[in-house]
Amino acid sequence: MSLTSPEVSAFADRVPAYLTRLERTTDTLLPPASIDPERLHQAMRYACEGGKHLRALMVYAAGEALGVKAEKLDAAACAVELIHAYSLVHDDLPAMDDDDLRRGRPTVHKAYDEAIGILVGDALQTSAFEALVTTDALDAEQKVRMIRALAHASGSLGMVGGQAVDMASENLTLTLAQLESLHARKTGALILVTCQLAGIAANASAAVQHALETYGKCIGLAFQIQDDVLDVTTDTATLGKTAGKDVAQNKSTFPSLLGLDPARQRADALFDEARAAARSVSGRAEPLLWLADYIQQRDH
Amino acid sequence: MSLTSPEVSAFADRVPAYLTRLERTTDTLLPPASIDPERLHQAMRYACEGGKHLRALMVYAAGEALGVKAEKLDAAACAVELIHAYSLVHDDLPAMDDDDLRRGRPTVHKAYDEAIGILVGDALQTSAFEALVTTDALDAEQKVRMIRALAHASGSLGMVGGQAVDMASENLTLTLAQLESLHARKTGALILVTCQLAGIAANASAAVQHALETYGKCIGLAFQIQDDVLDVTTDTATLGKTAGKDVAQNKSTFPSLLGLDPARQRADALFDEARAAARSVSGRAEPLLWLADYIQQRDH
Repeated sequence: MSLTSPEVSAFADRVPAYLTRLERTTDTLLPPASIDPERLHQAMRYACEGGKHLRALMVYAAGEALGVKAEKLDAAACAVELIHAYSLVHDDLPAMDDDDLRRGRPTVHKAYDEAIGILVGDALQTSAFEALVTTDALDAEQKVRMIRALAHASGSLGMVGGQAVDMASENLTLTLAQLESLHARKTGALILVTCQLAGIAANASAAVQHALETYGKCIGLAFQIQDDVLDVTTDTATLGKTAGKDVAQNKSTFPSLLGLDPARQRADALFDEARAAARSVSGRAEPLLWLADYIQQRDH
Repeated sequence: MSLTSPEVSAFADRVPAYLTRLERTTDTLLPPASIDPERLHQAMRYACEGGKHLRALMVYAAGEALGVKAEKLDAAACAVELIHAYSLVHDDLPAMDDDDLRRGRPTVHKAYDEAIGILVGDALQTSAFEALVTTDALDAEQKVRMIRALAHASGSLGMVGGQAVDMASENLTLTLAQLESLHARKTGALILVTCQLAGIAANASAAVQHALETYGKCIGLAFQIQDDVLDVTTDTATLGKTAGKDVAQNKSTFPSLLGLDPARQRADALFDEARAAARSVSGRAEPLLWLADYIQQRDH
């Protein structure tokens, strides 16, 4: 007999099961690759493969901390990963960041072609919103609130707006405030919304929602600082995407503005702040604490 | 005192008011062009300007035929136009149809740049779903049903899938059935969904919904046949987009498969079928009949 009840066992032990749930939800939602147009459907699935699925795990971790059953989180976990996958496919296009490598494999427009790359991103975005309306586990009000939050996070005031600012900022030296604002949109908004979606699934109070959002904002910014640090310190094989791109594209980064060690220290302070916020969310903060540690220790 | 009550006056008289409603709904939904990132927000608005807004008018016409108040139709009318606008921006990109002219003006990637073209399309798609969740005029169940219908119509089994098939069909001779299947997705699905959205706003019966869908399918196919005919018979200045593209891209079209006059006759028969379906929708079919006539007579 186990000495620990499921409620207090480590979140790490449940990660494989959550990733299996994510895979199953995505597989059920997306049309089979054998359905016409086959090449588009193959490429949509290709774009969803690989990756650490940190955003989905954040939905599940935040949901666990609020005592929400996993079936109420599946659609949200799937939706944020679909939005993330679509954004990577479009960001990698020649007219954007022009990258050949993603998650250790050729980018979609390299493995297929550029038109398929555009259409895959378009269809994956549609699928993200479809995921939230087709689930049976949420009531209509929750679905509407989730779609509103996800649309805000991913649209022109969120992720897409951040990418536009990022493209326009090449060869410019940003202030630290401008850089943080850019990344709060480009990367942070989608990380933050994982916490908001879990809060909606839980019908959480405003106070709990606020604490969760503090956690999400700190993780989001720390994550981006790490990305900037890893771009300088890690090789392409480990990253699974082209290293050294920020310098090559003459972008302002946290290491370029702060220096490498101060950037690392800033990220560490944000992880500490995230953990403090997690402890104020609920007495079951272990999943959020584990995830903060896990992200803090990542090497790609 | 007027001899005609508002209910029986001609739909044509109300078109300007509907277009004003559409403009107001879109203007309220999209972030102002003065909001950061300004260039993206300017380009999003640029992409929504011009055009006949036939899809929005179909929502209003079908809604009128079902006795639905205009405020319950505004979000749906705006959403279908945003999906349509996003699809035009992406279809015009160099890696897709590579076109310089749209609605009589430079395409978005010509007026701005290619990265902005990609991001404008992405953000307009997000805005379409946002339109449906932010309205106060529909209940949550209606919003969820509308988003489900719009996602199905515009995703990989609908509009985006049709564009993928279209791209893959260049230099191939399709059968008539293949060409109709392609256009049922590429153009037809979004025209059909205008009727479905109005039906959802009306909480229409299955029988009424079915009749409306027959109308929508006939209009959608007739519309595409007309597009193919106009591409051959009309000049670029009148069309507001590059004429003669189908022949230049060696595409199968209704005139190329059927001949010009038989293609016209096929479209006319479909308009007649649409009118018959409209009369079976309700005793207030005049808006749908007017719209069938209006589309049948278009020269661009």
